[in-house]
Amino acid sequence: MLTNPTSDRVRSVRGLSRRGARRKSGAILVEGPQGVREVVRHAPQDLVDLYVTEAATERHRDIVDGARSAGRFVHEVTDEVLRAMCDAEHPQGMAAVVSWRPAAIDDVLDASPGTLIFLTNVRDPGNLGTVIRGADAAGADAVLVSSDSVDVTSPKVVRSTAGSLFHLPVVTGLDVEDTLDRLRAAGVRTYAADGTGERTVDEVDRRSPHAWIMGNEAWGLPTERRRRCDETVRVPIYGHAESLNLAMAATLCLYASTRG
Amino acid sequence: MLTNPTSDRVRSVRGLSRRGARRKSGAILVEGPQGVREVVRHAPQDLVDLYVTEAATERHRDIVDGARSAGRFVHEVTDEVLRAMCDAEHPQGMAAVVSWRPAAIDDVLDASPGTLIFLTNVRDPGNLGTVIRGADAAGADAVLVSSDSVDVTSPKVVRSTAGSLFHLPVVTGLDVEDTLDRLRAAGVRTYAADGTGERTVDEVDRRSPHAWIMGNEAWGLPTERRRRCDETVRVPIYGHAESLNLAMAATLCLYASTRG
Repeated sequence: MLTNPTSDRVRSVRGLSRRGARRKSGAILVEGPQGVREVVRHAPQDLVDLYVTEAATERHRDIVDGARSAGRFVHEVTDEVLRAMCDAEHPQGMAAVVSWRPAAIDDVLDASPGTLIFLTNVRDPGNLGTVIRGADAAGADAVLVSSDSVDVTSPKVVRSTAGSLFHLPVVTGLDVEDTLDRLRAAGVRTYAADGTGERTVDEVDRRSPHAWIMGNEAWGLPTERRRRCDETVRVPIYGHAESLNLAMAATLCLYASTRG
Repeated sequence: MLTNPTSDRVRSVRGLSRRGARRKSGAILVEGPQGVREVVRHAPQDLVDLYVTEAATERHRDIVDGARSAGRFVHEVTDEVLRAMCDAEHPQGMAAVVSWRPAAIDDVLDASPGTLIFLTNVRDPGNLGTVIRGADAAGADAVLVSSDSVDVTSPKVVRSTAGSLFHLPVVTGLDVEDTLDRLRAAGVRTYAADGTGERTVDEVDRRSPHAWIMGNEAWGLPTERRRRCDETVRVPIYGHAESLNLAMAATLCLYASTRG
């Protein structure tokens, strides 16, 4: 049982809340049973250490047993130690250190993807994580994230993905213009999601390979980036709302792909 | 120019972050230009006081002029005073005190609604506000909120609605069982949104009047409540995600209504 909230180990786990430490170690922090469960199920080989309180060990036997039978390190910790390790206010009894690497754009394109989403200049961690979760639910082939977006490995993003970060390839650090050109060259239609679009998401071709291109939460996609796409398309608005929030708009686009 | 952040007026505005003060006064706090603009456009008669910094007065002439020509009180304030009034960390230069009353369920049902959404036991302010925004975008006729959900008038909810709170009727404080019975008696089909549903949201009748019934973020709708509905329906999941978050699921349901 780890009881010292100021030990080097605790400090090193907590350090993963900082981008620099994540980069250096190639590890991220996954907080709470929902996310940890998906690591144990889908990427047990990447689980480095699982930290869990006594109460959570009882409550989530499936997760702890799964980690043990995959031969991973399970450490029992006090509530105080867990809180000291975590970025979340309520980590719900467990956290894991997990190896994670972004996917490569070449591999994504080589696999002949049907539906992609490309997030550019997205600044809110909750939005980014929620879109990854929505992309997973809609069965998208991968999520692409530009270098001018928030860091995918930050604890808030990881929490918002609810484990989906371990379900589908996520490519990070992409140059927007270069990637739009590569998508088109690979035969992937690029649809800029923007309220100014003439046709709606349900009116454009979603049977051919395509990518939804999303812009910043507040100011959307700049004109030059939209022009680089095949077409600007909109999610229809039927009431008086000015717009939808980014995560909702992205999820509606991705589900339009499932009805293609 | 109001310059004293500890004045009685500032304290009284700040007090609206507390539910008791909102109830007593019948007023709520609307923070930021996005929300305030929708009040000025859609409910100028309900704007009690507008507080705005010098910089925001320049930046958002349309809002300030709109408030003035509707004969409302516009007060210039310092950044410090605005921060002292607000719950938001970044109120972006303005906040308004606005009279707001929930709609009555009788009026909603008398107006022969086509699409409704009923939020039961929803606990996260951001989720609740986002669903109101989504309902507005999808052109729903009203949002119903149970008494066991978070308070619709809390500043976080109001911010997440992005002004949609002033665009469509929102009924609050509803008893769940009683309301489900009333909806059915009024000829409104009740669809419990839950992953266990046999048919998907796109497979059920959305041409007849209907209401989507949403449960708590973590544990969904209890069996007894689902049984009281006409049918349990699910948003299809195509990938490995366990579920969608509440706001996403609700928005997908509401947009399914637009394709009915």
